[in-house]
This record gives sequence, C-alpha cells and structure tokens, in this order.
Amino acid sequence: MRITRRKTFNAGHRLYRPEWDDEKNLEVFGSCSNPNWHGHNYTLFVTVEGPVDPHTGFVMNLKSLSRLIDSFVISKLDHRNINLEVGFMKGKIASTENLAVGIWEQLEKPVREHGARLYCVKLWETENHYVEYFGDKKS
Amino acid sequence: MRITRRKTFNAGHRLYRPEWDDEKNLEVFGSCSNPNWHGHNYTLFVTVEGPVDPHTGFVMNLKSLSRLIDSFVISKLDHRNINLEVGFMKGKIASTENLAVGIWEQLEKPVREHGARLYCVKLWETENHYVEYFGDKKS
Amino acid sequence: MRITRRKTFNAGHRLYRPEWDDEKNLEVFGSCSNPNWHGHNYTLFVTVEGPVDPHTGFVMNLKSLSRLIDSFVISKLDHRNINLEVGFMKGKIASTENLAVGIWEQLEKPVREHGARLYCVKLWETENHYVEYFGDKKS
Amino acid sequence: MRITRRKTFNAGHRLYRPEWDDEKNLEVFGSCSNPNWHGHNYTLFVTVEGPVDPHTGFVMNLKSLSRLIDSFVISKLDHRNINLEVGFMKGKIASTENLAVGIWEQLEKPVREHGARLYCVKLWETENHYVEYFGDKKS
Amino acid sequence: MRITRRKTFNAGHRLYRPEWDDEKNLEVFGSCSNPNWHGHNYTLFVTVEGPVDPHTGFVMNLKSLSRLIDSFVISKLDHRNINLEVGFMKGKIASTENLAVGIWEQLEKPVREHGARLYCVKLWETENHYVEYFGDKKS
Amino acid sequence: MRITRRKTFNAGHRLYRPEWDDEKNLEVFGSCSNPNWHGHNYTLFVTVEGPVDPHTGFVMNLKSLSRLIDSFVISKLDHRNINLEVGFMKGKIASTENLAVGIWEQLEKPVREHGARLYCVKLWETENHYVEYFGDKKS
Repeated sequence: MRITRRKTFNAGHRLYRPEWDDEKNLEVFGSCSNPNWHGHNYTLFVTVEGPVDPHTGFVMNLKSLSRLIDSFVISKLDHRNINLEVGFMKGKIASTENLAVGIWEQLEKPVREHGARLYCVKLWETENHYVEYFGDKKS
Repeated sequence: MRITRRKTFNAGHRLYRPEWDDEKNLEVFGSCSNPNWHGHNYTLFVTVEGPVDPHTGFVMNLKSLSRLIDSFVISKLDHRNINLEVGFMKGKIASTENLAVGIWEQLEKPVREHGARLYCVKLWETENHYVEYFGDKKS
Repeated sequence: MRITRRKTFNAGHRLYRPEWDDEKNLEVFGSCSNPNWHGHNYTLFVTVEGPVDPHTGFVMNLKSLSRLIDSFVISKLDHRNINLEVGFMKGKIASTENLAVGIWEQLEKPVREHGARLYCVKLWETENHYVEYFGDKKS
Repeated sequence: MRITRRKTFNAGHRLYRPEWDDEKNLEVFGSCSNPNWHGHNYTLFVTVEGPVDPHTGFVMNLKSLSRLIDSFVISKLDHRNINLEVGFMKGKIASTENLAVGIWEQLEKPVREHGARLYCVKLWETENHYVEYFGDKKS
Repeated sequence: MRITRRKTFNAGHRLYRPEWDDEKNLEVFGSCSNPNWHGHNYTLFVTVEGPVDPHTGFVMNLKSLSRLIDSFVISKLDHRNINLEVGFMKGKIASTENLAVGIWEQLEKPVREHGARLYCVKLWETENHYVEYFGDKKS
Repeated sequence: MRITRRKTFNAGHRLYRPEWDDEKNLEVFGSCSNPNWHGHNYTLFVTVEGPVDPHTGFVMNLKSLSRLIDSFVISKLDHRNINLEVGFMKGKIASTENLAVGIWEQLEKPVREHGARLYCVKLWETENHYVEYFGDKKS
C-alpha cells in the first residue's frame, strides 16, 4: 500500500556551473542559466509505503506526513533562492533531478522513524515536466 | 500494457473506532472523526493490464471496464455514507487505505473474468493526497 | 482590477425540506437527499475588486484576504455537517446556491473593512458544476 | 463573442519598495520580499472580443493572437527577472496586479490593429490566486 | 445567481470554405483545414441565471439542466463529424465560435421553458483556448 | 531517476476492422467506429530513465527530449487522420493501445542515441482514460 501527499512551493534558481563562463552555460542550459535568476511554482508528491495499521486504517497518519514535509522540505525551499539559500543544495546544480535527490535525503530518515518507507519523490517544475526519484537502490 | 479508467463519486464518512471514546478518536483522527459526518469527492483510477487483443487493439473494452466499475463500485458508494451503507466497508475504519482495499476486492474477480488482470486501485480523497493498492501479492 | 483567492474545504450535507417526507424529498432532490448524509470537496473562489494601492501594488494584501476567508468561512465549514453544525446555514436548504449566499454574507463586511469590495463568490461542489453569486445588487 | 488564449511563462521577482528598508519590506510583503529573489510559473489568459468574421468564422485568427502574445509579452518575460530585466515593469512593484496592467499595455494596441478589442488580462501567479484587469474604462 | 454545468464531448471537424481551393484554405486555416479531418475533446460550460427558488434552494435543478444539455447538444455532437453530421452546423464553418453560437441556439428556448435564462456558452477546443458567447443582446 | 516530458496533439481517427461490415464494427467499437471520423486532444507523457550526469545535473537535456518528441512523434500526428495519414499506424487499428506502441517504436532508438532509456509511453485519449506501455520486455 502506498500513500502520497501533494505539496507546493515556489522558489528561484539558475542552472549553471561556476567553472564555466556565461557563454558555455548559455549553450548548455539555455535561458535557464539567466544570471539574474528566474523561478517556478514546484509541485511535490511524496509517496511512502508500508502495511496498513489495523488500529487506524492508515499506512501513516497524513497529518504527520504533512508536518514532516513542511518541516524538513517546504520550510527550507519556499520563497527561497535554491542556489544561495538552501543548505542541502549548496555546491550542486539546481536541476529538478538534483532537487529531487536532495528532498529524498531530507525525508528518508524522518519517514522511517515514523514507521513507513519513503518510496518516491516526484517533482514537477512546470506543467510540462517532472522527475521521479526512488532512492539509491533503484536508480 | 496497462489501461486506466477514471471515475468520480462522492460520499460521506467518519474516521473513528467504536471502542474509543470521542476524545481518543479526536486525538488520533482529528476533525475527520466529527460525529456528525463530513464527506469528499473521491476520484478513482482503476488500472488493468494484459496483452493487446489483435482483433480489437484493446487490452480490455473500455466500455466494459466502465460498466463493471459502475456496477461493482460506484453504485455502492456514490452519495452513500461509507460507514453505514456500504456492505464491503462494514466493520472497517473508513480510511482511504481501507476503501482502496475494499474497491480492489470488488473488482479483482470481475476484471479477471473479462480476461484482464487488475493492476492498481488509485484513490484520491482530496486534491492533496491519494493511496495506491496493488493487491496482496505486492503489498 | 479584481483579485481572486482559491480555497478548499470538505463538508457533509443533505438536500431536503423537513416538512416533506422522504419520498417527496427523494423525488425532488434524488440521491442528494440521502438521510445518512454524503459530502463533497468544495472549491471556493473569492473575488474582490478595487483600485491598486500605489504603495504596495496590491488591490488587497493576499495574506489578509486568505486569513479573512479562513476565519469567517473555512473554520466554520471545513469537516463540518452543513445542515447541523454551520450557524449561517441553519434553517436553509444546504444547496450550493444557498451556501454561496451564506459565504457572501460572512465575507461582505470584513472585505469592506479591509478597503476592498466583495465582487463574486464562486463555489464548485463537484468538478461538473459551480454557482456564482454577485450579491443582491446583481442577483 | 469573446475568445481567450492561454499562455505560460516563468520568471523571477521580488516584492519591495526601494525606499523602504528590508525590515519594513518584510513586514508588508512577507517572504515575497526575499532579497535573493524567488519566482513563479505564471499562467496568462488573454481575452479579446469582437464580431465573428463571416468569411473565417473567427473573432480573430488564434495563430495571430498567439504570435502577438509571444512577441509582445512572453518574449519579454519568460525566464526573466521581472524587477531587473523587463522594460515595461521598470520602477513598478512586481505585483501580479501591476504585471497584469503592464501586459494589458503591451497588448491593447496590437490587438486593436488586428481588428479585435482586448477585453481582459487574467494572470495566475500560483494555483491559489489570480488577478483580472479590464483596462482603464472598467477599473 | 448563476449556475454552470460542465460537459465533455469529442468530435471531428475541418476548417475550410468550400468555395476556396485547398491552397487558399491552407493559407487561412493552416493545418486545421486538413481535408482528411482531425478532432478534439471539447469541454463545454453552460451557465444559466435566475433567482433561487425558495422551495428547493435551486436556480434550476442540475439534473434537469444536465439532461437538457445531453438531449439538445451532446447527443448531436459526441463522436460526430461536425461538418457532415450535425444539423445545426450545416453550411457553417466549423469554428469554435460558430459552434458556440449553434449550441446557444439549441439551448436558449429549452432553458427558458425550465424557468431560467441562458447566460453564457463557454467552449474549450483545446487546453489553450476557449470562446464565450452571451447571445445576441450582448455580442 | 526518471524524467517525463508532457506533450499534446490533436488528431482524427476511427476504430474499425476493414474486413468487418459497419454493423459488426458498431457492435464492437460503438460510436468510435463512426465512418465519418471523430477525434481527440491527446496528452502524451514520455518517461526516460538513466543516471544523473554530474556535469549538467540532467538525466537528459529536456530541450533535446522535447525536440526529439516533436520530430519523431508530434509532427507525424498533430492535426492528422491517424488511420489515413500516419505511416507507423498503417494497417493497425487506431486504438490508444496501438498508438502508444507506435509512439514507443518511434522514440526508443532516438532516446537511446541520446544516452537515456525510454521507460514509459503514457497516452491520455480523454480525461477519463489513458494507457501505459513499457516496451516488449515488460509487457
């Protein structure tokens, strides 16, 4: 059984490698490398799995899952500059892929401590694309 | 190859254990345990799988799948009180998880008799969360 | 200039007139008159209008509008039984139309006190229908 | 008869008044005044009105309307910093309201030159709010 | 008070004037004039207005409105070729604008006979554009 | 890690077997076998998988993936008659299932040549159903 909680946040970012000049960054990342930043409304789906607790009918209490995502992920990302202000993204390219891995790493342990297993982090950057990360074992 | 049919229904329910008092139910289930009931617009996605029939180009005739879901699921749930009026939920906590298992049990055999395999029951209770059940083999 | 805030809530209700018997209620209201209640995920759009404040670039601060809707509407409706537990709906049929009028009456004065005019209350009961109420002047 | 074209773009911005210090900006604009910028996926609906041309069945050729929005609006905003890089927003607070007025001013004349009248600019900043601007005559 | 019912249908069509040759049609209508037809999933919103009936809490019974749209519109359009098989579109260009006018003309009288006034026919042809028709008085 | 790109196109089609007469086709395929054609707005989700390139933070450059889908799929299907004008569907029933297999076969090799693996082709024909194809290995 899997249960999924949706969350939204918005943030600013820029795709670039600091060791490349602007021309090279523009060639690889296009307008996403704009040095003046741009941003997105991200939509995040966090899926956890586990057996159904016969006492509650729940895999995991949804309010707990919601609070956990707010505390470990949304509070660190919402209305932030991903390149400059998000500790777990320091030194990484602010791609949707890397952001999904970072979110996984924030959530894996707290979800486990609540008795469930993190199964998937799915992250939409625009209405036209999303990434899905299932952790190291399956990547 | 998998094919999925979307359906909607609305229903009333309450999350609670009869052997707990209101205070304990409130503590575990929050406002979802309101003794005066509340309800939801549920969105259901039923996924079946199988080979493509070369005569029709279909895994399963969608009109048949639609009728089957209406007959075995929607007619029993739509505009109903899940705790009081739905036979397959009697004695169970009316959580989204348990409801998905109940829907699976209604559909598994009829889908098989139409030559396909039920793969997944995905059930949204609000726009912010859903559960997925894949049957006993994979849970 | 108009600005609109979206909110969601879920609630239980039943369409019926207490002076009619169940048969008559069933004839007029169909399955919506189920004596055991059912419910919906409602989506509410509140639109206010006014000039843009040159100091802020706002018609009205969205966080204020959001708090005002939470305080005067959502806190009274969310996870509630509309027929039994919502003061401003007492003695009224719990139709989407009457609910929209009731929400308008909760919001009209507080919005005015924040320097804007309430323009429209739009309320979706399911994905297939909604009502719009513009206040007495235009009804 | 009115016809509406949807477009999307994403951009970065910050809500603040340069003559206020960070504390005052934070008090009025909250996390939207983050000096390190954040951003959004904007969804824009441009509505034009006019009679139906009996030769084409069109109020206005949709491909023309689409090209006109791309040329006068999207090319100036997409993947841009609204405060720093968008000519028609220079010196204005980058609120959704002001952005809608700016977009109206870009489109009003070109739409008129194509034989239709601009009726409404509707701009969603997140899934939870949007503004509508109808031009000076109706504001 | 206004109430709106959503409906969907799909249909085939082609934009062209029979007195023009294929080259001229291609120039004006682009790929929409493909002589081999193409089609769309249309989404229709029918809005009616009137006072709230104090006996029912309804502007108009939604089930009646739904049946009326099915009977006068959907049954004539769904899975049809708009140019060849839809009586009320014979001799007209199969544009979204003309289709909205045709739908209005099917619905205006039946809605009036049910005690409400047809206010707007809104028709989406793709997720990127829609038309709105308000009848002759306002066009 | 998986990354998914959404695309839309519209097309006309008809479900039928040429060796069956109209009556038999109507019996099996219902109104979908209308000899005058009908059509849909299709929504396509193409999912590819692979490791994240440490130089770019990408599984695959989304702009490349987008161009590849446009070139190998959308340009062949958009505004086309699937039965008559789409090379890779010649001689096949124009069902959603067969269309998904055809799209997979167009994309499998080009995606591989860009260093990623095609994982899933998901195709919505209406808002109420979709198919998913994972290639021969998993079907």
